Amino acid sequence: MVLAEAGFEVEIVEMRDDEEWTPEDDGGLAKAASATKRSINLALSHRGLCALGRVGLAETVLAQSVAMHSRFLHLADGSTATQAYGGPGDAIYSVSRSRVVSILSAEAARRGVRFRRDKLVGLDDDDAAVFASGARGQAPIFGCDGAFSATRRAMERRGRHDSRVWYASQGYKELGMPAKEGGDYAFPPNYLHIWPRGDLMLTALPNNDGSFTATLFAPFDRIEALEKASRDDVRIFFEDFFPDALGAMPEAVDDFFQNPTAPLVQVQLNPWHRGDAVLCLGDASHAVVPFYGQGMNAAFEDCLVLGEIFDRQGGALDLRAAFEEMSTARRAAADGLSTLAVMNYRDMASNTASSLYRARKVLEGIVSAYLTCWHPLYSMVTFSRLPYDAVLRRHARQEAALTALCAGLVVITVATLLAAFATASRRIYLGLLGGGAAGLRRLL
Amino acid sequence: MVLAEAGFEVEIVEMRDDEEWTPEDDGGLAKAASATKRSINLALSHRGLCALGRVGLAETVLAQSVAMHSRFLHLADGSTATQAYGGPGDAIYSVSRSRVVSILSAEAARRGVRFRRDKLVGLDDDDAAVFASGARGQAPIFGCDGAFSATRRAMERRGRHDSRVWYASQGYKELGMPAKEGGDYAFPPNYLHIWPRGDLMLTALPNNDGSFTATLFAPFDRIEALEKASRDDVRIFFEDFFPDALGAMPEAVDDFFQNPTAPLVQVQLNPWHRGDAVLCLGDASHAVVPFYGQGMNAAFEDCLVLGEIFDRQGGALDLRAAFEEMSTARRAAADGLSTLAVMNYRDMASNTASSLYRARKVLEGIVSAYLTCWHPLYSMVTFSRLPYDAVLRRHARQEAALTALCAGLVVITVATLLAAFATASRRIYLGLLGGGAAGLRRLL
Repeated sequence: MVLAEAGFEVEIVEMRDDEEWTPEDDGGLAKAASATKRSINLALSHRGLCALGRVGLAETVLAQSVAMHSRFLHLADGSTATQAYGGPGDAIYSVSRSRVVSILSAEAARRGVRFRRDKLVGLDDDDAAVFASGARGQAPIFGCDGAFSATRRAMERRGRHDSRVWYASQGYKELGMPAKEGGDYAFPPNYLHIWPRGDLMLTALPNNDGSFTATLFAPFDRIEALEKASRDDVRIFFEDFFPDALGAMPEAVDDFFQNPTAPLVQVQLNPWHRGDAVLCLGDASHAVVPFYGQGMNAAFEDCLVLGEIFDRQGGALDLRAAFEEMSTARRAAADGLSTLAVMNYRDMASNTASSLYRARKVLEGIVSAYLTCWHPLYSMVTFSRLPYDAVLRRHARQEAALTALCAGLVVITVATLLAAFATASRRIYLGLLGGGAAGLRRLL
Repeated sequence: MVLAEAGFEVEIVEMRDDEEWTPEDDGGLAKAASATKRSINLALSHRGLCALGRVGLAETVLAQSVAMHSRFLHLADGSTATQAYGGPGDAIYSVSRSRVVSILSAEAARRGVRFRRDKLVGLDDDDAAVFASGARGQAPIFGCDGAFSATRRAMERRGRHDSRVWYASQGYKELGMPAKEGGDYAFPPNYLHIWPRGDLMLTALPNNDGSFTATLFAPFDRIEALEKASRDDVRIFFEDFFPDALGAMPEAVDDFFQNPTAPLVQVQLNPWHRGDAVLCLGDASHAVVPFYGQGMNAAFEDCLVLGEIFDRQGGALDLRAAFEEMSTARRAAADGLSTLAVMNYRDMASNTASSLYRARKVLEGIVSAYLTCWHPLYSMVTFSRLPYDAVLRRHARQEAALTALCAGLVVITVATLLAAFATASRRIYLGLLGGGAAGLRRLL
């Protein structure tokens, strides 16, 4: 739509023939998404909303979503705690992938974007698309075809594009957490629920029908070992680690054996473009692990950033320059997100459960409340449009300052204690001396 | 053929429809190879010969090749020098890619291997091959389909295989160096000719018809800039850097503009296999830059190593264990080669022209002549079957020893000089003292 705005005649070519494009009901969609191993829940936040806002769809999508203003932690000792994601009014939004796709498709169609089923098989000598049907595409091509992008493959065959595809050690499996009888949510709905267990993590995101979609993250080997175990072993596994969640997932064991274990693929590509002919966006050029909930947001922001570059160029579009900027500045941002997303697993699965981490968060909360120039990491990623690489740099500076502050507090505390101790011990020493002298006097 | 030996019914599936499989004459082949951007000259050495020996083809291929026992350096100042590759009798062999392919194909056909034209499009849920024709393949699949391997892509889509595809900063362009009138070689034939110029490098490998095939290696940007320049600029470029070579390349300027600039792609993959169903070999799992002339040799050695694993297993083949060993030990070796191949560019293009490097080579030659446990790097890579990663480790130890030896020699030399100087200066001091005393005596 950003392209249509910029005056392009846009045609979307999609090879997949699943229900996502013409959604009828949620059941079928969930199945389709599950069959393609893609998660059915997404967490929409500021960057994605800004992009949707540009094409006038933010409100429409928000209306279909459930706000999550805090983490809801289910700790191993059975206690619970909440951690607000940001200030008052800050929230991330749980929304179904299929709902977002269908809203976007409908609006695109309304704006004259055409859709066609075909499959990219390569690029010709002029970098024009060659399709399975024999059709040729007109440049430019925007490759928004996911982590296993056919566009990226075609670019790689044509010339010098460095790419890396690598997997996290974890896999994930989705599990159903239906509404209770009467339609109520099993847990408070306006939260992202996390069961942090170090290597293991269970999350649950609310759907707008009273259900949650739970996702189990675990080392692949561990899931595979469990898949070879008995139903009883799986039940015991859930009872051991996630007893309260199990109470809300009557089909957990069935889901565990029926649903596929999805891998977490990461992609880097350099450069993202070929001249003014091809540009890869979204997962095609920068798939990340899902732990910051930024995959969709970053992909949407790609479109927004491209639109902003077009805006700056005014009427005289220079695609080559725009694509180069995407391949440099925006690629650096995407690399930053890749790092952030990996970092956040530790935060979610382990640190959230640590009291030291929570004490530090409290201290950071106090500091950020008094210093307007202080921005917590999560807020910069989720509630700002600061490029991800700039977020990382700023976070590093703030961490150094926070560590210095902690160290300062420790030094002051120790110094005070020492001074107190020194005063006390001088008294004791003098007392002993006095006592000794008195004793001596008595002896002599 | 290693597979046929092990009792497999082998079918080779090839999507390409070029002349390589049914060669008629060299002209057409060179064109075909050139069209696919693959070099037409290869340097066969010990590892490749061992593999060919296992299937009884070493002599047949050697008969079609030209031995190169030394480097022949054409230095920038117009002088020349030679550097033997190894001991007496050690040589690498220049041979045409198409000749090797046709010898291998003929022998494979003779052994009952079937050939079929088709194209792999994916792997099904059981990791069986799905072809464009609709045919299904039987497991196991051996992906020997090059740096842009369809088998590797199919594996990546099925599960967790980390891969990296990246490009060297250099590109290369092949140039003809025909036989002189009367059929003689333009330069002495039993050498690998190198024009080392730092960033730039020209090489020439002999063909068995009196011609050489020259290859210009240069930073991609530099070649691209030159491609946009005039014919005169290109001629001046060759006159400036490679005057003697230009004398032997009457069509150099035409070749420069007509022949494509090929990129140098590198590939890493982990793991190389899926269970007992799929294994990627050769460039499909470990493409390297060509600077050690080991690409084909390493690919052939892959087959040999697999054959040796089968031998060790005796009659009871365990494909899964064999594939795992290829994915661990052999992959580590391939990673070592990747490092070695990059290292050798510096050696070929710059170090060979440095007198310090040559002095060190002479010292290493002396050491290795007296110490049978000492193996020069080049010999370990080219004339042994020591795994490439072991070569790297041994080289590091030897380099440390050689540096210690050099340092020792320097210390001994300096100490001797200092001692000599001290003796001399004591004499001078005593002389001065004597003279001074005599003078004083005279004064008083």
